[in-house]
Amino acid sequence: MPLPQPDLPEPAHPDVDSMLSRKFGKEVANYFSGSPLNRVSFLRPDHSFLSAALKHPSSTFLLFNKLEPLIKSPTALATATYAEVRPIIGDDPFEKTEEDLIKEYNSSQYVPQIVFLGLDEKHEGFVYKDWYKGQPWFAVDVTPTKSVTEAAEKLIAELTGRGLEFSKGRMHLSLPAQEAAVYAEARHLLDWNARNPYCAACGYPTMSVNAGFKRTCPPKDIALSVQNPERPPCATRTGISNLSFPRTDPTVIMAVVSADGQKILLGRQKRWPKYWYSTLAGFLEPAESVEEAVRREVWEESGIHLGRVVIHSTQPWPYPANLMIGAVGQAVPGGEEVHLGHDAELEDAKWFTADEVREALRVGTSGLGENAGPEYKEGGLRLPPKTAIANQLMTAVVNGFATGAPMI
Amino acid sequence: MPLPQPDLPEPAHPDVDSMLSRKFGKEVANYFSGSPLNRVSFLRPDHSFLSAALKHPSSTFLLFNKLEPLIKSPTALATATYAEVRPIIGDDPFEKTEEDLIKEYNSSQYVPQIVFLGLDEKHEGFVYKDWYKGQPWFAVDVTPTKSVTEAAEKLIAELTGRGLEFSKGRMHLSLPAQEAAVYAEARHLLDWNARNPYCAACGYPTMSVNAGFKRTCPPKDIALSVQNPERPPCATRTGISNLSFPRTDPTVIMAVVSADGQKILLGRQKRWPKYWYSTLAGFLEPAESVEEAVRREVWEESGIHLGRVVIHSTQPWPYPANLMIGAVGQAVPGGEEVHLGHDAELEDAKWFTADEVREALRVGTSGLGENAGPEYKEGGLRLPPKTAIANQLMTAVVNGFATGAPMI
Repeated sequence: MPLPQPDLPEPAHPDVDSMLSRKFGKEVANYFSGSPLNRVSFLRPDHSFLSAALKHPSSTFLLFNKLEPLIKSPTALATATYAEVRPIIGDDPFEKTEEDLIKEYNSSQYVPQIVFLGLDEKHEGFVYKDWYKGQPWFAVDVTPTKSVTEAAEKLIAELTGRGLEFSKGRMHLSLPAQEAAVYAEARHLLDWNARNPYCAACGYPTMSVNAGFKRTCPPKDIALSVQNPERPPCATRTGISNLSFPRTDPTVIMAVVSADGQKILLGRQKRWPKYWYSTLAGFLEPAESVEEAVRREVWEESGIHLGRVVIHSTQPWPYPANLMIGAVGQAVPGGEEVHLGHDAELEDAKWFTADEVREALRVGTSGLGENAGPEYKEGGLRLPPKTAIANQLMTAVVNGFATGAPMI
Repeated sequence: MPLPQPDLPEPAHPDVDSMLSRKFGKEVANYFSGSPLNRVSFLRPDHSFLSAALKHPSSTFLLFNKLEPLIKSPTALATATYAEVRPIIGDDPFEKTEEDLIKEYNSSQYVPQIVFLGLDEKHEGFVYKDWYKGQPWFAVDVTPTKSVTEAAEKLIAELTGRGLEFSKGRMHLSLPAQEAAVYAEARHLLDWNARNPYCAACGYPTMSVNAGFKRTCPPKDIALSVQNPERPPCATRTGISNLSFPRTDPTVIMAVVSADGQKILLGRQKRWPKYWYSTLAGFLEPAESVEEAVRREVWEESGIHLGRVVIHSTQPWPYPANLMIGAVGQAVPGGEEVHLGHDAELEDAKWFTADEVREALRVGTSGLGENAGPEYKEGGLRLPPKTAIANQLMTAVVNGFATGAPMI
């Protein structure tokens, strides 16, 4: 059964009448963006704030087991309360200051990961320093492991007894847009913390600070020796190091149009279903502009030479840590011959007419593991769903992004 | 003495007549982009290719000492030959396959970092598999340390005896545009390799592969024990891990215009010279679209509420690993009051008229440590130079990006 397709989210500020909107069209808010939360990032080191937010009656917790979220169904996240997570995280993990916790660091003690996601300002209730109001959202890793095994297993048994479950795979593409954005934030941060337990500069274990948004390399570790816990110097302790902060990998994804603007280049990977194509994509490399990365990737994967590149919109993609930067590029005259022999990533790449793509956007879209819609006829072009920025880029092109017609 | 300001580079394909160019204006290629090299990224694991390229008579080497490049002057990089770097890198570091080098890994042996930058296709000469032609460019770390101390000191004495020097600080903003782009690629990769000697997943030392574009966590290390060199399992060895690949941090930088499009918001940091302002900027966070990150950062730093955000252009920034994503955002009506009390990053933020900014772009720009031009009058607004994307964003706005006038 195909999963229900969510509508795309509205932009955070639907100011349809601004000059930029009149000139560039309405903003395309891609799936996984459009979060309702104010992250108040500057409050993350403030344990008075975090402690009060954590214990406020309106505080809401997303739970993850091995990076999979607790859900009610494929179309709804489940949430938990402070009372429920307390046996795992303790009464107040923010009772001491961050400074004191760093001083007492003991790498042999397991601390379940907590991430402060932000305040949902639609719901008043919790108020901090007059300015900051809303329902606090947190994510907690409840994976049964080490010192929390028993408490986590007990909680999981309670939750699953109520009919809740931990999702498998990427079913989260069926969540409503705003839930998907909150889930993406939680998943990206939990994954980054789990993936980076050691310091890449010195090899010693690091600890989570700033409510899950920073990992620091403490100068002492009681696990080494209570009498002599000093560690060697580490470059991340002098000045600010990007190694201490979450990583996000910029990725380019692009609709390629022919020099005359009439055709669209699409490619396919071998493992995809028959007749399925999508836009080309790849990681941006060090010291490339987005525009250069688009031209390089398109040439490497398809042999096409691009001229002008225009960025269209962007999409967070938490598998595990990507920022998809969507662009439209136009082939230069004489640069349209497909050559797949440089990089062996694609099984095929070819030009489709705008009409073929328009029709496939109408009848041939679905998630990768799903069937196309009822109007789809075997042999026709198949394309990704609206939740994919690839779909939004192709839609923009068939609606005139690269020609004289309105852009979005 | 002010450093000479380079002209901005031309886009790689100046197809002034494409539909996208007619619609969106000519592409702005910011400083540090516009590289003349074809990176042929898919050839990096191929040691036959690398070995032949390294030893080809046209092969060209940028040298770095503690991440500072060898220069002839602040406006010209110096290059070296294979014969000159050979005492440091050895006759052929690519003689064995990558697979064999991983099998023989010994973390106690120092291997000077080499990065393959790409082929300059303007110069034929080296040819590989018929398709790939040009002058090979490499970067080599010649910092005198460990086993290469003597050879490196000798080479450095020779080079400085010829009047060359290793640059100090960020004088590279005075390089011609294409040299700056090649330097940026080299610097970003050398810095990433130097900054990440250990595996963040398991804490063991890693080794450079793919000609400087990947770090792998070998399953064995002869330095542990010749008889029993096995290491514990590591998550980066199963499937593809982003930890193995260079990191680039997406950053947003934005010209903010008022709801009526007539004013521009600029901010200043305390450490900047008097009267100096620039656009706001900040790091994109996990699971944010660029558009959301722009709105969050502007609100956190200035209290302004933005509606529509449009991406303008992007700029690589190799200090150490940023991708600057330049945008223009428009305040919503009623959301224009400045409030500096959320995040304490800025000393001031205020609205300037388009005329004030236009005049300052004409007379008040310079590098941070330099004097403004001869027409500048004390007390007038000072702004960053054309090499900064901030300058390009302000220029786009005063030229009508956010109004009815032509965009670029």
